[in-house]
Amino acid sequence: AESPNKDIIYSNRGMTLEEDLNETNQYYLTKGLAVIHKKPTPVQIVHVDYAKRSTAVIKEAYFRQASTTDYNGISNGKYIDFEAKETKSSTSFPLKNIHEHQIDHMKNVIKQNGIAFVIIRFSASEEIFLLEGERLFKFWDRMENGGRKSITKQELETYGHSIEIGWAPRIDYLKILRNLYSF
Amino acid sequence: AESPNKDIIYSNRGMTLEEDLNETNQYYLTKGLAVIHKKPTPVQIVHVDYAKRSTAVIKEAYFRQASTTDYNGISNGKYIDFEAKETKSSTSFPLKNIHEHQIDHMKNVIKQNGIAFVIIRFSASEEIFLLEGERLFKFWDRMENGGRKSITKQELETYGHSIEIGWAPRIDYLKILRNLYSF
Ligand SMILES: [Mg+2]
Ligand SMILES: [Mg+2]
Repeated sequence: AESPNKDIIYSNRGMTLEEDLNETNQYYLTKGLAVIHKKPTPVQIVHVDYAKRSTAVIKEAYFRQASTTDYNGISNGKYIDFEAKETKSSTSFPLKNIHEHQIDHMKNVIKQNGIAFVIIRFSASEEIFLLEGERLFKFWDRMENGGRKSITKQELETYGHSIEIGWAPRIDYLKILRNLYSF
Repeated sequence: AESPNKDIIYSNRGMTLEEDLNETNQYYLTKGLAVIHKKPTPVQIVHVDYAKRSTAVIKEAYFRQASTTDYNGISNGKYIDFEAKETKSSTSFPLKNIHEHQIDHMKNVIKQNGIAFVIIRFSASEEIFLLEGERLFKFWDRMENGGRKSITKQELETYGHSIEIGWAPRIDYLKILRNLYSF
């Protein structure tokens, strides 16, 4: 099979980061490379209508805050856990997009010898970065110590790993992890 | 600290298997033994009312079928993935409680060197068994080949691992896994 023209620059054509990652994870699953899924949105269900014989209808429910990250799974024996975030800012990623309990969760994962990270997408420029948990914690601590409340794009270029959007898989984060963690 | 009287037989006092497992996982988390969470119930959200300024209210939603298992996470570098099921039957566990795509998911996990299993609770007798994925698949295949559509309790006693209900943790499945998989 011929490889696609290297000069083609893939665009996300209005797909959200979540859609791109779901496609990527589906690709990994089909190819037997990884089993990674997005967790469902946590919802507090208050009232369900069972009147219709066939289908229960949830009539009142509320969004709950997630206690963990969005995605987790396994590849070649390695536990993988990450959060995905988009920002409209063109210059920096605001840390208010991450919750403290998600930081705690990622620390717990790393203590158990898992891989934890965040994938950040700048929607205007379509640039995507993978930032390892250990690096993220440093920027988090800087904020906690009164420093800036965001990670600049330049810092992501230095301390993170740029991911080019491709055709299949669209966001090949596994390639980066395999290099970083040798698996 | 004194250990609790060994003669005490803990009862689940009306707690569901899910509640017992959530308490167990919380115990593991607090003790730094594992990071394992239940995934939220998957819900298809159709209509959300944003009228109230503070809180979005989900006004119409439907339960979706889970594409994976209920619980996953990590302990000491090992990826752990399982489904938990209760049955009111006192003699056997009906395999209709498991979906084919959950079997597929567990097979995929094992191919990636993860640990996949099911925890089965007989609610009448409060007996709990851990059955490894590899064993479950054999009973599944037996059904697919026209054999019985359930796993008898006697088979679970032979091929599974009985778990005594305790105080903390309530359902110590990690102890069994550590023995089975040496971690
Ligand atoms: Mg999220
Ligand atoms: Mg379930």
